[in-house]
Amino acid sequence: MTDFITMAHGNGGAAMQQLIRDYFVEAFDNPTLAQGEDQARIPLAELIKCGEKLAFSTDSFVIDPIFFPGGNIGKLAVCGTVNDIAVGGAIPKYLSCGFILEEGLPLSELKEIIRAMAETCRRAGVQIVTGDTKVVQKGAVDKVFINSSGIGVIPAEIDWGAHQIEAGDKIIVSGTIGDHGATILNLRENLGIKTDLHSDCAVLSPLIDLLRPIQGVKAIRDATRGGVNAVLHEYAQTQNLGMQVHEEDLPMRNEVRGICELLGLEPLNFANEGKLLIITKAEKTQEILTALHSHELGKNAAIIGEVTDDKKVRVVGIFGQTRLLDLPANEPLPRIC
Amino acid sequence: MTDFITMAHGNGGAAMQQLIRDYFVEAFDNPTLAQGEDQARIPLAELIKCGEKLAFSTDSFVIDPIFFPGGNIGKLAVCGTVNDIAVGGAIPKYLSCGFILEEGLPLSELKEIIRAMAETCRRAGVQIVTGDTKVVQKGAVDKVFINSSGIGVIPAEIDWGAHQIEAGDKIIVSGTIGDHGATILNLRENLGIKTDLHSDCAVLSPLIDLLRPIQGVKAIRDATRGGVNAVLHEYAQTQNLGMQVHEEDLPMRNEVRGICELLGLEPLNFANEGKLLIITKAEKTQEILTALHSHELGKNAAIIGEVTDDKKVRVVGIFGQTRLLDLPANEPLPRIC
Repeated sequence: MTDFITMAHGNGGAAMQQLIRDYFVEAFDNPTLAQGEDQARIPLAELIKCGEKLAFSTDSFVIDPIFFPGGNIGKLAVCGTVNDIAVGGAIPKYLSCGFILEEGLPLSELKEIIRAMAETCRRAGVQIVTGDTKVVQKGAVDKVFINSSGIGVIPAEIDWGAHQIEAGDKIIVSGTIGDHGATILNLRENLGIKTDLHSDCAVLSPLIDLLRPIQGVKAIRDATRGGVNAVLHEYAQTQNLGMQVHEEDLPMRNEVRGICELLGLEPLNFANEGKLLIITKAEKTQEILTALHSHELGKNAAIIGEVTDDKKVRVVGIFGQTRLLDLPANEPLPRIC
Repeated sequence: MTDFITMAHGNGGAAMQQLIRDYFVEAFDNPTLAQGEDQARIPLAELIKCGEKLAFSTDSFVIDPIFFPGGNIGKLAVCGTVNDIAVGGAIPKYLSCGFILEEGLPLSELKEIIRAMAETCRRAGVQIVTGDTKVVQKGAVDKVFINSSGIGVIPAEIDWGAHQIEAGDKIIVSGTIGDHGATILNLRENLGIKTDLHSDCAVLSPLIDLLRPIQGVKAIRDATRGGVNAVLHEYAQTQNLGMQVHEEDLPMRNEVRGICELLGLEPLNFANEGKLLIITKAEKTQEILTALHSHELGKNAAIIGEVTDDKKVRVVGIFGQTRLLDLPANEPLPRIC
């Protein structure tokens, strides 16, 4: 086997079988994947004892660069889909992964990506049970893109979602905002800011596990691409309600604040890869906050605002002035995830 | 909205929301997708009445060109994953789709791809219930790549798979081989062969529906990338058995035979996108063949060989001579699916 991805690694033949066996099956080691059929086969009995709804989600990852402080595209691909499943209240169970590899990709890099995926799966308690590998010629894709899809089970008593949101509800963010976006921006634009800033890329299901028993969680999203702002707008639009956040309550690292001030960018638009935006029933907000604070991943959680009935998304500034928060018309930072 | 994909279509903001609403949600119209949550939520009761195993599969599609006689990348993405689920004996139910779009892709082309996906889903009786869209700058991906993942339910009484195969079993192919590969080759290499040859890209679950009631089906794969040859090798390797096929029994269109002879290529290596390779219990083979012949998609089905115990994959030629069939070491035709 050469040290680089070749077109033969994608042809359905011997080189591809070897790649799958030596790299993927070895790293993602589990009996379902090892069956080697075209589809994973999962006994439903393992799922149905947990509840009554299946959660199913997909995400493609095209981040540039593929390695960054705090993670790589592989860790991101597992965290992203596990979190998308978990925010529906589900217990994540099984993942698929689909790789699109550029001819010439060093196998050492692929190995490192796969290693990070396997380790993140173990932490998340999920298994990669089916997969696919395509190789395209040099120049037809930028290094490696990964799709991960996943399934989980939503316990019977959970019904979180935008449809639960009402005026008067509170808005919580589970930690500092913008870490992932600022890290990638700093890296890619060569801002030259020396910091120990790193992506917040993390599996958030442990936080969800803490919240599931509390009555009063109404809806949760992870504030990834588009940041907190995008989630606020999605909720406002879906429910025809308003969202108001208070600038001084936004938890933020100094480095992120610095980068935003330097470039005149809005931190609420910055992507996060390990932060929840939680809409809560007002009287349960404190209990939810206390639960979040009990976990390392939620120690900086804060109440940042409330749901209003005036259909606007707004920021209240430090001196009490308010401004409307629009969705950006252009792409401020492509390939953030 | 412009006529082309712009980076803003991938930023999680207004343009992306409009693209999703006006293109994807509109075309794939179903209540689960319309919920607009980060994950589809599927009542397990709709699944469990069918049986006891979940089938879960994923595939990324990178075919070049994206439009071809007989289909396009969208139709292929639905057929491919539906078939990968169905060949396990499952009833395909739900799909996800993840798009990676190149900046500058004409929206008219995206619309046509989505239209084909929606139509193919309707025929297959499946729903696209969750999705994701990424846009990358011009040059970072070749036009459009699609991942589709899917779930289905395997009825309790079905246990098809490589583990069932024994020496003495028969090998059936459900129709003419190599149509998809020959079509793409003819198109891409400008062979200039004027034919009405077209890809066999099709949803194969109607054929699976016919086979499920018959005892004696042992294992099924769809012979896509790598062709019939790749499947024969996978089965031989997994079970430590041999596979022998008879050249004169291979159903093949004259055009495909012509292209192979012209270029000195092996049709057993050519990709199919609408053909099953079925391993059957010898005494049930005729019954299975008759069932296949009753359907348009299986009218050219033929018994092409048998499972042996000598661990070789072999072709018996028209004059009785035999030759070993190796897996190709290089990629004969990249980006075939």
